[in-house]
Amino acid sequence: MADKVRVGVLGATGLVGQMFVKLLDNHPWFEASYLASSPQSSGAKYRDAAEWSLGGMPPAWVSEMVLGDASRPEEVPGDVEMVFSALPRDVSAPIEAALARRGLVVVSNAGSMRLEPDIPLLNPEVNYEHLGLLETQHRRRGWRGAVLKVPNCSTAILTLSLAPIINTTGLRRLVVTTLQAISGAGLRGLSGHAILGNVIPLIKGEEEKIMGEARKILGELREDGVKPLDAEIHATATRVPVLDGHLESIHMEPEHPTRVEEIREAIEEYSPLRGMSLPSAPSKPVLLAWREDRPQPRLDVWAGGGMSVTVGRLRSSGWISYVALGHNLVRGAAGTGILIAELYLKATGLK
Amino acid sequence: MADKVRVGVLGATGLVGQMFVKLLDNHPWFEASYLASSPQSSGAKYRDAAEWSLGGMPPAWVSEMVLGDASRPEEVPGDVEMVFSALPRDVSAPIEAALARRGLVVVSNAGSMRLEPDIPLLNPEVNYEHLGLLETQHRRRGWRGAVLKVPNCSTAILTLSLAPIINTTGLRRLVVTTLQAISGAGLRGLSGHAILGNVIPLIKGEEEKIMGEARKILGELREDGVKPLDAEIHATATRVPVLDGHLESIHMEPEHPTRVEEIREAIEEYSPLRGMSLPSAPSKPVLLAWREDRPQPRLDVWAGGGMSVTVGRLRSSGWISYVALGHNLVRGAAGTGILIAELYLKATGLK
Amino acid sequence: MADKVRVGVLGATGLVGQMFVKLLDNHPWFEASYLASSPQSSGAKYRDAAEWSLGGMPPAWVSEMVLGDASRPEEVPGDVEMVFSALPRDVSAPIEAALARRGLVVVSNAGSMRLEPDIPLLNPEVNYEHLGLLETQHRRRGWRGAVLKVPNCSTAILTLSLAPIINTTGLRRLVVTTLQAISGAGLRGLSGHAILGNVIPLIKGEEEKIMGEARKILGELREDGVKPLDAEIHATATRVPVLDGHLESIHMEPEHPTRVEEIREAIEEYSPLRGMSLPSAPSKPVLLAWREDRPQPRLDVWAGGGMSVTVGRLRSSGWISYVALGHNLVRGAAGTGILIAELYLKATGLK
Amino acid sequence: MADKVRVGVLGATGLVGQMFVKLLDNHPWFEASYLASSPQSSGAKYRDAAEWSLGGMPPAWVSEMVLGDASRPEEVPGDVEMVFSALPRDVSAPIEAALARRGLVVVSNAGSMRLEPDIPLLNPEVNYEHLGLLETQHRRRGWRGAVLKVPNCSTAILTLSLAPIINTTGLRRLVVTTLQAISGAGLRGLSGHAILGNVIPLIKGEEEKIMGEARKILGELREDGVKPLDAEIHATATRVPVLDGHLESIHMEPEHPTRVEEIREAIEEYSPLRGMSLPSAPSKPVLLAWREDRPQPRLDVWAGGGMSVTVGRLRSSGWISYVALGHNLVRGAAGTGILIAELYLKATGLK
Repeated sequence: MADKVRVGVLGATGLVGQMFVKLLDNHPWFEASYLASSPQSSGAKYRDAAEWSLGGMPPAWVSEMVLGDASRPEEVPGDVEMVFSALPRDVSAPIEAALARRGLVVVSNAGSMRLEPDIPLLNPEVNYEHLGLLETQHRRRGWRGAVLKVPNCSTAILTLSLAPIINTTGLRRLVVTTLQAISGAGLRGLSGHAILGNVIPLIKGEEEKIMGEARKILGELREDGVKPLDAEIHATATRVPVLDGHLESIHMEPEHPTRVEEIREAIEEYSPLRGMSLPSAPSKPVLLAWREDRPQPRLDVWAGGGMSVTVGRLRSSGWISYVALGHNLVRGAAGTGILIAELYLKATGLK
Repeated sequence: MADKVRVGVLGATGLVGQMFVKLLDNHPWFEASYLASSPQSSGAKYRDAAEWSLGGMPPAWVSEMVLGDASRPEEVPGDVEMVFSALPRDVSAPIEAALARRGLVVVSNAGSMRLEPDIPLLNPEVNYEHLGLLETQHRRRGWRGAVLKVPNCSTAILTLSLAPIINTTGLRRLVVTTLQAISGAGLRGLSGHAILGNVIPLIKGEEEKIMGEARKILGELREDGVKPLDAEIHATATRVPVLDGHLESIHMEPEHPTRVEEIREAIEEYSPLRGMSLPSAPSKPVLLAWREDRPQPRLDVWAGGGMSVTVGRLRSSGWISYVALGHNLVRGAAGTGILIAELYLKATGLK
Repeated sequence: MADKVRVGVLGATGLVGQMFVKLLDNHPWFEASYLASSPQSSGAKYRDAAEWSLGGMPPAWVSEMVLGDASRPEEVPGDVEMVFSALPRDVSAPIEAALARRGLVVVSNAGSMRLEPDIPLLNPEVNYEHLGLLETQHRRRGWRGAVLKVPNCSTAILTLSLAPIINTTGLRRLVVTTLQAISGAGLRGLSGHAILGNVIPLIKGEEEKIMGEARKILGELREDGVKPLDAEIHATATRVPVLDGHLESIHMEPEHPTRVEEIREAIEEYSPLRGMSLPSAPSKPVLLAWREDRPQPRLDVWAGGGMSVTVGRLRSSGWISYVALGHNLVRGAAGTGILIAELYLKATGLK
Repeated sequence: MADKVRVGVLGATGLVGQMFVKLLDNHPWFEASYLASSPQSSGAKYRDAAEWSLGGMPPAWVSEMVLGDASRPEEVPGDVEMVFSALPRDVSAPIEAALARRGLVVVSNAGSMRLEPDIPLLNPEVNYEHLGLLETQHRRRGWRGAVLKVPNCSTAILTLSLAPIINTTGLRRLVVTTLQAISGAGLRGLSGHAILGNVIPLIKGEEEKIMGEARKILGELREDGVKPLDAEIHATATRVPVLDGHLESIHMEPEHPTRVEEIREAIEEYSPLRGMSLPSAPSKPVLLAWREDRPQPRLDVWAGGGMSVTVGRLRSSGWISYVALGHNLVRGAAGTGILIAELYLKATGLK
């Protein structure tokens, strides 16, 4: 254990924070030694403050841990090297910047700063080379540490499903409708009375995130930043009464007409991180559904340990149409966060 | 219209408040001329402040009404004679008392004061004679107006279903398990993440309310108050992913063994308010389900306009067993509130 | 009552059949005097054979009616003039043809024959002029009666929402993703275990129906049939855990760039059947949602008595994007069937 | 592998059959070498015939297996020693008897024969000594093999939760209301339209099973059979929109008044199979919930690998009240079936 990297989790009591805790349980590289929450809960034991909602009880090691105050970045102990942030967007930026200034590597799921030109917004299989932005970041901000961002949940799932396809077909236009799970709204973000047996056709800010972040993630690394992908994207985001797993209905106009069979092969062979031995990287990041009525959120959300995206209904009529499913809390949040941290350690030679 | 009674609704933006608004729409006796909410929403238009959740849009007459501040009972206009209160329990008592002191008749769904000896806790068909407590109330409190209380939602449904039965059989012991709808927790009381595909086997304070209030409602009016029914009651309250309608599984030990057929007849004939011409009184307050797999919340919740309780699965093996269903926002809250107001007007000769 | 038109309902025990029964209850022009079901249920009383699922009990007049055998069209009594068919697709064509041959007017929700060139596929507001196909139908088939078809549920909702928009903007390309309610699969078409907390991204044949039928409905009546609309349509159909109400996410490329405000006006003014006094025609067939997070199936499905489609989230960025909601059993099936019958009677001068 | 016991599964494509397959995957003692289904599906590959509903794909070893015809017991290969039966009740008895006659040990989840005096109805922790009935069974029926029965799902959960309690308190009367999950009705037993956002207060035959089977399981083994427990049981069974996990609300009149603390201790110490090293026996068959609002089906159904029952809300007021939760497909069906098989092998010295 001696050589595990000590990590902290900010916003550890929320749903994404809980998923960080769950995924860090027995992680081979990381040891979570510091958890922090909002000032109101700080000082309480994790088991009392976190309304644990991932089944059973929190892992034993975390139950009795006392929560720090995430709003006070100076309280993060000196032996913590990396921090996972699941902070609310509106408070996250200054806290994360303060930690980076102190020399910590912050891997953040918070919505702030994602589109800033020197901030890597990483979906590791898709754009690991965007890590290169860190050089600019160090130069421009003078931070000893760094900030790396996890994409918005729907965008992480969308771009991972797209990567092997548009490698082959190119992309002119994309129309996506998301059917997003309740857990994407957090523990208390959506009332039961509102969502039971219902669909809510608005998720504030989500469509803008999808359109902006997808272009950056799929863009090209240049000297001075990322040149966004030049493609038209139209998005509608909806909330459905599903617990976990965002399903996305995707229609795209390719640059080159391509047979469905070629696309299937491109997906089957897609494995850009192969050979890097990152513990959280699924062997197949994009899976083809095994039945024509799949993927379904309840049955397929845990594919690849929640880190794989499953593609189904693939068909073409000039445009290419398909559905993609991913676990919004894992591939769409905490799992990708941990994968980014693993990638960072590998890339910097620390692992 | 000139002779309609002007009424107000306190807590008008919550779910019970919305149901008061809906049931007062086109009510033959009442005209809602004042709506109030928490201080934060006061001053706003109803359509903007109320997250209207009863389908479609709020009635046109209410949409543009400007909300008063329910915490300032002195703001209730002078021409308002009655007030329906859907205030939160913890702030309700002093506000309702202040209004009663000013001379208003307050019909309140709030949980406070229900068990106080001079407060009528009314489920009109079951215990209209408890109105007689008002005399004691006037004498003891010196109020020019009055406070009348609506029972807890589960208790209203339970006691109405029981009344025709125990008239016939008597009651020694009762065991009830409730399966309560989400709307009983209010607009935002229960997160979607918590309740979707789940059951929560705890509703804080509910079992105590059922046991205490049922004994009072079914008790006997005496000179000095109500002598509670002397019967053992055991209750478990659960929350299920149903929108509206509390279903209750009831098992009871009668005092006199009674054939099921006799009980069915007692239910069929039960109509204690017949002849009083109260607009909200259903012609049959207790209905027998027409199929053995009924009542079901989604199919039967609106029986009798939401004011009837439906009884099914009636059977006996020494003990009597059945299930009962009622609309928690109507029979269990706003509807019973309005029926109490109608009963009061009739009893005092004002209608 | 003497001058009501006597009608029959085939397939009266299924969900669409039940909705026909419900909508015919107290209809000013029609009297349902004959109900038929599959041979297995024929001879039984409606209340015993139909698992009534629309709330409460079936209307009293229907409860004791004895079901005929829908597979024997010769059993339809001689005084029945029109028949509503909710038969399964695979048995419907010969039965409906036999009735038309006998001289009855069949308004059919069954999937067969919809794309045949002499069969009017009617969404009355959108293409009432396609009634003109009946002349060809009489000539070609030699039927004394007629067959008129109700569109597929999703297509009825889609085309009605589109009509006022593309009148203004024209249409080059359309991408639609549907989020369809369980009731669209019929009483037992979808198991609870499959759909609870889940999305199923395949509805067999639905996408082909949407693409084929929408082009015909929006097409132009010619001498020899309907010239389908020349526009590219891409569709993905999904099933969500919603009871009633199909929500559709629509993205379209217009022919002429148009400001959102103009489109809103076109929708507000849209009322092509105004002046015809058809009992089931809603005064506003397309409504604009009153809040940005609407329409929602549970709250808005009954708009216009289930006959109006509600449009929300309307926005433009070159392409036009919006969501539309309609009641799949009313506007998407029985309600449109009855409206077609009314239109037919009016057009032929019988009313 | 050579010394694994070869087993078959009858009714392998249904939900209980699927759970048998899942639990037998990598089982240390058993190797499933024969799967059979109804005649219609026999001859097909498992992956094509089974609508696999337990998440992801069926285990690889089972996907390509070709299904036998369960209605032909003579087809079970000679090297199969034990058979797990998930057959429908109405066809099960003769098939299971034929297999037992041939010398196979049948562990059956089917509802038939459970109350016959020489058939052990086993909930292993609760009444393993009822295995002793096998002697009578051999003598009376002349079978070379044997039939052992798994209790009804609700009853298995109820009696396991009761065992440590009534060991301490005795039992006079019991009132139980079940809130049962959809998966208890099988893959297609309950339509989505019926159960979404609803409760169905009737499960045919369930209450009789609970009352009859619980008395037998909790009864005393005698020379000539089991003397049923002499206690009054009242039961109401309901279906709720939950995927897996039956929750039961239990109220009981003890013979001896007992403090809650004593009952908690009895539960904590309860571990009757300790020391037998049965692979499927959970170390703690009855768990106390760790929060007062638990157990909840979605969060706690997998406690002890689905084999533990979780008890919560334990309280006393003369009567004892609590809720219990168990996995209906594991503890209530396949898991208990496998535990019975393990117990049998251990008891007969074969393991």
